[in-house]
Amino acid sequence: MTQREHRLGDLAERFGGEVVGGDANLVIKRIASLRSAQSGDITFFSHGRYRDELAGTRASAVIVGADARDATTLPRIVCQDPYLFFAKVARLYHDEEAARPGVHASAVVLPGARLAPGVSVGPLCVIEEEAAIGAGSRIGPGCMLGRRVKIGDGTQLHAGVTVYAGCEIGERATLHSGVVVGADGFGYAPTAGKWLKIPQMGSVRIGADVEIGANTTIDRGALDDTVIEEGVKLDNQIQIGHNVRIGANTAIAGCVGIAGSTRIGSHCMIGGAAMIGGHLTIADRVIVAGGTVVTKSIDAAGTYVSVIPATPAREWRRTVAMLRNLERMSERLRLLERRLAELENEK
Amino acid sequence: MTQREHRLGDLAERFGGEVVGGDANLVIKRIASLRSAQSGDITFFSHGRYRDELAGTRASAVIVGADARDATTLPRIVCQDPYLFFAKVARLYHDEEAARPGVHASAVVLPGARLAPGVSVGPLCVIEEEAAIGAGSRIGPGCMLGRRVKIGDGTQLHAGVTVYAGCEIGERATLHSGVVVGADGFGYAPTAGKWLKIPQMGSVRIGADVEIGANTTIDRGALDDTVIEEGVKLDNQIQIGHNVRIGANTAIAGCVGIAGSTRIGSHCMIGGAAMIGGHLTIADRVIVAGGTVVTKSIDAAGTYVSVIPATPAREWRRTVAMLRNLERMSERLRLLERRLAELENEK
Amino acid sequence: MTQREHRLGDLAERFGGEVVGGDANLVIKRIASLRSAQSGDITFFSHGRYRDELAGTRASAVIVGADARDATTLPRIVCQDPYLFFAKVARLYHDEEAARPGVHASAVVLPGARLAPGVSVGPLCVIEEEAAIGAGSRIGPGCMLGRRVKIGDGTQLHAGVTVYAGCEIGERATLHSGVVVGADGFGYAPTAGKWLKIPQMGSVRIGADVEIGANTTIDRGALDDTVIEEGVKLDNQIQIGHNVRIGANTAIAGCVGIAGSTRIGSHCMIGGAAMIGGHLTIADRVIVAGGTVVTKSIDAAGTYVSVIPATPAREWRRTVAMLRNLERMSERLRLLERRLAELENEK
Repeated sequence: MTQREHRLGDLAERFGGEVVGGDANLVIKRIASLRSAQSGDITFFSHGRYRDELAGTRASAVIVGADARDATTLPRIVCQDPYLFFAKVARLYHDEEAARPGVHASAVVLPGARLAPGVSVGPLCVIEEEAAIGAGSRIGPGCMLGRRVKIGDGTQLHAGVTVYAGCEIGERATLHSGVVVGADGFGYAPTAGKWLKIPQMGSVRIGADVEIGANTTIDRGALDDTVIEEGVKLDNQIQIGHNVRIGANTAIAGCVGIAGSTRIGSHCMIGGAAMIGGHLTIADRVIVAGGTVVTKSIDAAGTYVSVIPATPAREWRRTVAMLRNLERMSERLRLLERRLAELENEK
Repeated sequence: MTQREHRLGDLAERFGGEVVGGDANLVIKRIASLRSAQSGDITFFSHGRYRDELAGTRASAVIVGADARDATTLPRIVCQDPYLFFAKVARLYHDEEAARPGVHASAVVLPGARLAPGVSVGPLCVIEEEAAIGAGSRIGPGCMLGRRVKIGDGTQLHAGVTVYAGCEIGERATLHSGVVVGADGFGYAPTAGKWLKIPQMGSVRIGADVEIGANTTIDRGALDDTVIEEGVKLDNQIQIGHNVRIGANTAIAGCVGIAGSTRIGSHCMIGGAAMIGGHLTIADRVIVAGGTVVTKSIDAAGTYVSVIPATPAREWRRTVAMLRNLERMSERLRLLERRLAELENEK
Repeated sequence: MTQREHRLGDLAERFGGEVVGGDANLVIKRIASLRSAQSGDITFFSHGRYRDELAGTRASAVIVGADARDATTLPRIVCQDPYLFFAKVARLYHDEEAARPGVHASAVVLPGARLAPGVSVGPLCVIEEEAAIGAGSRIGPGCMLGRRVKIGDGTQLHAGVTVYAGCEIGERATLHSGVVVGADGFGYAPTAGKWLKIPQMGSVRIGADVEIGANTTIDRGALDDTVIEEGVKLDNQIQIGHNVRIGANTAIAGCVGIAGSTRIGSHCMIGGAAMIGGHLTIADRVIVAGGTVVTKSIDAAGTYVSVIPATPAREWRRTVAMLRNLERMSERLRLLERRLAELENEK
């Protein structure tokens, strides 16, 4: 058994499950999906949608929830939360890419930048004056960190991240390629048909354990800072306007836009491509469905939607025509009610 | 009084306001938001939404409009347009980051590129053959300017801007990190189940005083150019298709997409995440609400919307069911009208 | 006649058309739009929308379809598909930018990277260990290719493309600036109010002849790979989640988001800013209109929509009020039906 291999019983014990229908000594070499698992692999089943794939899997063992204890006859680990159990096992089998220690010769580190011990700076980075990078952080190739940027300990910036002057990122954060932190917020005062730029004098403060997906942008504040609290997870291509505050452990899916000065609570979940207007307050534990447009503050936890699902075009054309016709329908109803009342009175 | 400090009366005089309820000699050291202002700070109040914050502010002075002359007893400047006044004061207190003069040793400037006097080129830039950069322009670290690119005088490219060959940017423009100007438009002719690429032979021309937000993309034209006229303000993550033309001083918020060959007038305001179809014409001074989908040309100034605000999920499910039911409702109405007419006739 | 010039008759013969109303020996020097064409230019007319521009064009010749044979008296080529014909002629007149052979001195090519003959690597690229680039491929300035990345023959990466470790791109593909391939998918398991990251251990495989627009992001898979099949065309700022599969020759317009594990068929067309939920299956040859939200699988070819077109604001406010009122309308209908039935029975 290599260092990478684990016995089924050891996995169950380590993460809190019960081995059912198989030998606790079974050696698990890899983790794989239901569809692509082979002999030696463990897989997981956490959604009824994939029942057919479970039936056809060639995995040696499966992680299942208590409700699916009998959904397969394969050796299995029965546990309370199979998705969480899978996450823990996957982390066990995952190779972290080794960091290159030190500063690559091609990186440009300007005078006064401070790098803590164990920092890795990739090729062709630019670290400007007075930037400070915490111990063990890994700055990927081609990252650009402006003056006075602060990066906490153990944080990873993948290739091509840009952080404007003065912005701060906490410990153990992960920023993916193309992320831009601290560009100017969109602020102009109209004057005589033109726009006078309002200098964006705030900054961006990002908490610990935040992850930010590729090409997401977070603008600096106008006067105060834009704040992303600890544990927030942001997917790709999200746009966060100036002076937004996002509460701890909120998760936001791809393509979401959040306009300026909006405050989002903690433990929220915002679905992909949702659009949240400016100057709003969203309570803790709010769920916004993908594609939904939020134009007013939401002051109670719950799920909010405004999406009309795709419809065959011909049918949809009739629905839109009906929509335009609603006022006339309402008028016809009112008229009918009046005429009917007259008839009833005449009886 | 340092160079940075200004007397309240001087601010009022300089930008056109009246000192009320305080000493014109009061020294103002900084500008800050209602919420975070301290003694020595001036703040501003331009929206009733923030009345509570006005009541609690610790600022030494406030900028207010004539309608809010008595909204506070703090020393204040009463003016016609407090937001514009704030913008002007903020510009006074804003530190421009000093440019590094000259070309950083790590930048790659290819033969035939022409840099006017006072140009600053940051570390690890690539300036290709025959590119021309105007006097006093600042090219941030890691920018990539293709062959024959032209940049006007006094323009600033933040870190990591890419401009494809042949594109032109006017004077005093600002491009934020991750902006891509001049990638190919999305043009293919279908043939036998595949797509034949149409070469994108036009360019992009961007006017003076344009600002472009982080990760915004502006495609080059197919035959003619894509054109962004002077004074246009584009927020982050906007996508502008090939051969679009955007009229002077139009402002577009984040996450907007504008499909190919559409012409947008001047002085328009397009809200965040709006989607504007291709081959349309939008008149001058049109306002499109955030999240709205524009599928037809708009030939008159005014405000246009098509957004349904977020609704609690249970309620929304019933609304969607109703939507699918509209034709039957209409049919039932028709039937009722017929039956009622019969009853009325029988009288 | 220079090498760049072609006789009208030669163009017609080469691409399958008929010269009408003009001299087959006419020399065509350039291709241009209806609006900007000058003497010596050929242009094309493929949509009735541009009839006025056809009337005013100064082109020397026009490409038209059989149905527009008599829409102009200018010398013309009549052909079956004028847009396809235009594409072919445009390709004839298009200058490919010459590649710089070899590896620029400023590029960082790490040990074990393999570059096939004829590869061009621009300034300030980073090619990490064991990456392999196929013959004749062109890597633009500032591209970042991670460990074990594979790039097929004849592929072009424009400036500033990032490809994470282990991802593969096929032959003759084109990736535009700011594209990020292989960032982590958005996968976390909730546990005790926080999010536990699920390592993203799959990769991205991109087929031959794929084109990817600026700032588009394609995430790596969690366990299996994310797959973009051959001939797919992706516009700018598209977000593709982990484990998505997109079938051959599907075309997707800008700003589209596709959530994780969704499978899209081949020969589909997805309009701009459409949003496609996760874990769905979309059949072959499905057309999704721009801005449409897809929340359920689509199992039949056809056109699907859910977009409400922009409406003047005052009118729209009434429609939204009506929407909120639909249940009451339905209730009123039911009541009327009951009362009317009673009256009818009494007769």
